[in-house]
Amino acid sequence: MTQLEAATQSKTPTREMTVAAGQEPLDAEALQQQVRAGLAVVLTNAAVRPSRPCAVGRGLRTKVNANIGTSRDYADLDGELGKLAAAEAAGADTVMDLSTGGDIAAIRKEIIAHASVPVGSVPVYEAGAMARERGQRVVDMTAADMLEAVRRHMADGISFVTIHCGVTRSVLATLGRGRRVCGMVSRGGTFLAGWIRHTGQENPLFECYDELIQMALEYDVTFSLGDGLRPGCLADAMDPGQVHELMVLAELRERAVAAGVQVMIEGPGHVPIDQIEAQVKLQKEMCHGAPFYVLGPIVTDVAPGHDHITGAIGGAIAAAAGADFLCYVTPSEHLSLPDAAQVREGVIASRIAAHAGDIGKRLPGAADWDREMSGLRRQRDWDGQLACCLDPVLARAVREKGRSAAEDVCSMCGEYCVFKLVDEAED
Amino acid sequence: MTQLEAATQSKTPTREMTVAAGQEPLDAEALQQQVRAGLAVVLTNAAVRPSRPCAVGRGLRTKVNANIGTSRDYADLDGELGKLAAAEAAGADTVMDLSTGGDIAAIRKEIIAHASVPVGSVPVYEAGAMARERGQRVVDMTAADMLEAVRRHMADGISFVTIHCGVTRSVLATLGRGRRVCGMVSRGGTFLAGWIRHTGQENPLFECYDELIQMALEYDVTFSLGDGLRPGCLADAMDPGQVHELMVLAELRERAVAAGVQVMIEGPGHVPIDQIEAQVKLQKEMCHGAPFYVLGPIVTDVAPGHDHITGAIGGAIAAAAGADFLCYVTPSEHLSLPDAAQVREGVIASRIAAHAGDIGKRLPGAADWDREMSGLRRQRDWDGQLACCLDPVLARAVREKGRSAAEDVCSMCGEYCVFKLVDEAED
Repeated sequence: MTQLEAATQSKTPTREMTVAAGQEPLDAEALQQQVRAGLAVVLTNAAVRPSRPCAVGRGLRTKVNANIGTSRDYADLDGELGKLAAAEAAGADTVMDLSTGGDIAAIRKEIIAHASVPVGSVPVYEAGAMARERGQRVVDMTAADMLEAVRRHMADGISFVTIHCGVTRSVLATLGRGRRVCGMVSRGGTFLAGWIRHTGQENPLFECYDELIQMALEYDVTFSLGDGLRPGCLADAMDPGQVHELMVLAELRERAVAAGVQVMIEGPGHVPIDQIEAQVKLQKEMCHGAPFYVLGPIVTDVAPGHDHITGAIGGAIAAAAGADFLCYVTPSEHLSLPDAAQVREGVIASRIAAHAGDIGKRLPGAADWDREMSGLRRQRDWDGQLACCLDPVLARAVREKGRSAAEDVCSMCGEYCVFKLVDEAED
Repeated sequence: MTQLEAATQSKTPTREMTVAAGQEPLDAEALQQQVRAGLAVVLTNAAVRPSRPCAVGRGLRTKVNANIGTSRDYADLDGELGKLAAAEAAGADTVMDLSTGGDIAAIRKEIIAHASVPVGSVPVYEAGAMARERGQRVVDMTAADMLEAVRRHMADGISFVTIHCGVTRSVLATLGRGRRVCGMVSRGGTFLAGWIRHTGQENPLFECYDELIQMALEYDVTFSLGDGLRPGCLADAMDPGQVHELMVLAELRERAVAAGVQVMIEGPGHVPIDQIEAQVKLQKEMCHGAPFYVLGPIVTDVAPGHDHITGAIGGAIAAAAGADFLCYVTPSEHLSLPDAAQVREGVIASRIAAHAGDIGKRLPGAADWDREMSGLRRQRDWDGQLACCLDPVLARAVREKGRSAAEDVCSMCGEYCVFKLVDEAED
């Protein structure tokens, strides 16, 4: 049984629901109800169970995903395991292995073996790579390659798969009637669009959706319905192509959920700040409250080198508006593959966004952390503050580097520390 | 004549308006109208004119201020000039000298002499330091010390002064009836609250407001009415004390504007993400559209070491909602006095927030930058992208460090670069 089938058919929560609820403001029974209603998903895999399954959706903490994985230029397994460790240490709730370089299958298996969090992937990358290994082009991958890649990933222990089923001929026709600045920027979506143009046939992930559902039922894997037409720049956001694909995803979600498969919907991308809330509300309405998994969104195109910040701005607003799952953006986005240090920065920035969003969502208990921190700050309890904060490692380093001669204050205000002044006045 | 008097009495814009309008989407005549209506201010000083006066307010680019200045622990003039240079190089529109350590007067004069942007300050810090130099406590400063400090700062060439005129006995009584977690966190506000409690007298900056107006008229300096009761943690935001002080500031603003003095209103601080828009709208309504100068706001208390990010999240939302001027927050906030590298990070993060906010405000032309960048990205014009972006120095370094073997892509996607795939398909 999948988590969704169990939520519907069983009176008691699954083991995964119980574990996942342990880090949430609701109990396993309440989580089971959210899963049953399709408002939450529990990320796991029946073949290779992650030690820390996690839940994504309504009433739950906003989660953070870290994309790792090789590219042609940096295809080192140890490097990826270092990124995995950095992501988990920084508090990522999941990772996605997006490897496209080196021995992709071997790297995936190692990442899954070393991960304690659920691992996601985009199987069509491997289908494209399979074609290239045969000396062909990406567009020469076959429908069988694509389906086989999905099955392989599930059998290896992937907990959620991004499948770009919504990149259909009809959706591409809508895209073609528009005038995008950046066209398509989803790598998997571009693979499929190229394949459709090359073969003249319909997207196999759309045509063979029932087969994918059967695989997901077998492995208890969650679908993450990919937004192949996500905007790649502010100017392209919420155009007819993007919205048309979302309509298709909403229908596909219904089919999967009816069959017993858990579904998340993926979203943008690059979005003007005043449009983010509308993007979230549109998805939530059209997809009946399905968990929404956004990439960033980043709120300006002009800040490469700082896209963990542009992504944190958009992610916080999206989470406050109801998005459930933030895919991090690292400082190297648009410039290079991230290293472990950049992975760390990306996770921390997204966790800040997720937490700020949880406060905005009025998630029960979210603001308690801030209240505790503020009480420690008022008391000038420095050890307490450093232990309480989101990134104790960096906070301690910054304080040490700019140390004050006095132990009970910081070097910004020193003797003029407002809390110290008030304490002295009250003495 | 002050800028405001000239806007009202003269048919032509001042030289400062003309210079300031040069970097705005409106012309000098339109800026003059905004100044006349009290919706914008032009930051300058009649005694020591900054070479780059700038305007803050409606219809203008959201501006970024960088706080610099010594503390007891780090009281080195060269260090401060290094921070000034870092702030200007990173694109700060103004700096504030908040020095409390070393020879405060000499440091201020040097900063003004080296700055090309307008310099702001908080004169009451010096009044407190004057008392301490006499071997007394901060609360032993006299009303004359406070007024003399304001005059000295204006005569030295400060373009905008933060004056905490709204910390009145009545406002403090409101504060006292509440239950704040962090009490007051404004340093200047705390000086005044302590003084009021110690002397039992009314705030001299409130009592002698007309004298301050006369000084501002003489030197053409802008008032930045300080929010002494700004919340120092999320839990304290928008409480009766904060709102009561804002009511007082709104009245004081009327008096100054009627007399011909330009006024900005200062705002928080630490604010839950879902309350930021309301904070901006409240200020704009109560103060009849006066320019709003916010500190951050930061959206969580738990992220010391990353408060440039928490501040960028809140600043972007505030700017999109109508805030006009963002005071940066550096990664060292709550931990230590920032160094030049942290000043740079703070300015860049705030500029990202300001630009994202300008797009949200639909400021004419703001999104053109993003569209240009996106076109260059689509064309894989790497030199063009690196020249176009907000922080070319860091962007180039990140690209170089994670270099791809291929010149025309980046190392994240390599041969699977979507733009390259599409270009090849179209060949």
